[in-house]
Amino acid sequence: MNISCPVPITNYDKITLAHGGGGSLSNQLIEKMFLKELGNTYLNEAHDGAIFNLPGKLAISTDSFVVNPIFFPGGNIGDLAVHGTVNDVVCCGAIPKFLSLALILEEGFLMKELWLIIQTIGKAAREAGVQIITGDTKVVDKGKGDKIFINTTGIGTIPEGINISPANCSPGDLILINGNIADHGVAIMSSREGLEFETSIQSDTAALNDLAGSIFSVTKEIHVLRDPTRGGLASSLNEIAKSSGTGIEISEKRIPILEEVKGACEILGLDPLYIANEGKMLVFVPEKYGDAVLEAMKAHPRGKESAIIGQVDSQSPGIVRMKTGIGSTRIVDMISGEQLPRIC
Amino acid sequence: MNISCPVPITNYDKITLAHGGGGSLSNQLIEKMFLKELGNTYLNEAHDGAIFNLPGKLAISTDSFVVNPIFFPGGNIGDLAVHGTVNDVVCCGAIPKFLSLALILEEGFLMKELWLIIQTIGKAAREAGVQIITGDTKVVDKGKGDKIFINTTGIGTIPEGINISPANCSPGDLILINGNIADHGVAIMSSREGLEFETSIQSDTAALNDLAGSIFSVTKEIHVLRDPTRGGLASSLNEIAKSSGTGIEISEKRIPILEEVKGACEILGLDPLYIANEGKMLVFVPEKYGDAVLEAMKAHPRGKESAIIGQVDSQSPGIVRMKTGIGSTRIVDMISGEQLPRIC
Repeated sequence: MNISCPVPITNYDKITLAHGGGGSLSNQLIEKMFLKELGNTYLNEAHDGAIFNLPGKLAISTDSFVVNPIFFPGGNIGDLAVHGTVNDVVCCGAIPKFLSLALILEEGFLMKELWLIIQTIGKAAREAGVQIITGDTKVVDKGKGDKIFINTTGIGTIPEGINISPANCSPGDLILINGNIADHGVAIMSSREGLEFETSIQSDTAALNDLAGSIFSVTKEIHVLRDPTRGGLASSLNEIAKSSGTGIEISEKRIPILEEVKGACEILGLDPLYIANEGKMLVFVPEKYGDAVLEAMKAHPRGKESAIIGQVDSQSPGIVRMKTGIGSTRIVDMISGEQLPRIC
Repeated sequence: MNISCPVPITNYDKITLAHGGGGSLSNQLIEKMFLKELGNTYLNEAHDGAIFNLPGKLAISTDSFVVNPIFFPGGNIGDLAVHGTVNDVVCCGAIPKFLSLALILEEGFLMKELWLIIQTIGKAAREAGVQIITGDTKVVDKGKGDKIFINTTGIGTIPEGINISPANCSPGDLILINGNIADHGVAIMSSREGLEFETSIQSDTAALNDLAGSIFSVTKEIHVLRDPTRGGLASSLNEIAKSSGTGIEISEKRIPILEEVKGACEILGLDPLYIANEGKMLVFVPEKYGDAVLEAMKAHPRGKESAIIGQVDSQSPGIVRMKTGIGSTRIVDMISGEQLPRIC
């Protein structure tokens, strides 16, 4: 936890209830911390909200982030909150433009940790090309929250000719993913449990808007985009199969996964198919574009390990099947319980 | 706490971690509870977000609600979360259209209380003419949250010719309010402390978009709208005075307040000027429109007790002054501490 510059609020080292009271301490937090790092012409207006113009078709998505621990190998709750919502907007076929940012802080939360998270949010937003245009801060009494919860809501514009929806999933579509699965969930789980693996497994948290741009430069005829976060690859595929009424077959040996992640899952008794990813995207594309899209994805820094992992068919509508490593076929169900609480 | 119809999820009477896991229990919550009450063509899409068209200039505002207790005289956290964000969008001069809804639930939260809150959200949204178009649910372990926290983010369209901003506040502007102050904060505080007053004081929580419509039907030349929530009337006026560099003078005897609220404030040692309102709006309007706007406000069900409470001037820029009941003038400062934590 290296803080690159001094915390801009020096008179308090911890969050107090008054920082959420709407008075001068709230204003100090806004001016000295949030505007300092995140400020732009919208946010600086100090209005009840922000006013903007965005022509055409828009997409909106919201997510609250309650990940535990808030700092983990490869990121923290701040970049996760930016990437998560940016990627949800991308998966609507949109170019993310604006985010709102709402914090629920626990009384006693360390000011220097808040500052580190705000700086991370600023950096992640700049890298993803989005602006934070409106926000809110609440403080709850000690023991009634857990350090920090973050909500982001994102807005983006959908370019002409793009039409992404799970309902578009069609028999024949190839299913691609941009790299190794289960990194995020295993990174969180191992840092939560204090487990040490031979190499440290990092969260894959990343914004995928630029990668989506590369994909759309091949063809606008992409049917579905989906980031397999909570519930992992298996849950996302099940949702898409169910809402489109198609069948899906994936091949176990084609699914990219790091050896150490596979090993960690065995030790922890977890199935990597159900483990959250935070920098991965499933791409459903008509068969004829499969190779060209794969090539474009592999050429992108966020897609080097991309692979075609399966195909949509009209057998067994609503069901996801997997050809296992030993050649048999098994049904990949929706998870019912909870493998990993507070993973994002 | 009267639940008007049976809870639609019967196999669980409490929220479990698995209800936030992204698997089949999450889906059950979405389908049987959220879509049942809140469903519309956007939300039913089961997409990562929602896709919409809204032409022209837009406003966005976000708020998280952490009020304690979650049920209070006059409302609950559900309608508060709808009204609060609707009113922030209104105070940008916009007609609210869409809301996102993100829940952070504590493990063990009663399903029947969630259902009651979801029904209240549905009713409040229908009454305010807004649709909930995208959402998210997270569950945190017992003792790491407090029953339910709600984030809403609202989007609205700004009609041609309307330009609301605190920076527009100009010397000569009359300042109107649509009724009694401090009801919400006192209702929360007395129900939290278990105090009983002669008559039960109710929260004023209400959506103000229809009232704003009545005001704009008089003139589009409204300078500022502001809902004095956290920090109360005093904090809102200070923010506006500071961001516009004007002075503000209000008259204590013109500020509408219920006798029992005044009495409760005396007992609790609170200054009503700093107490949150959730159904009140400050309206800054050029002097020539003052009487007509007041008349329109009084004719509206949400504005019967409306009053002109003060005027903007160029004396003492950035400072709010109040003529007291006994004729002296005092400065009304920004609050620094915290009168009432978790009021909204």
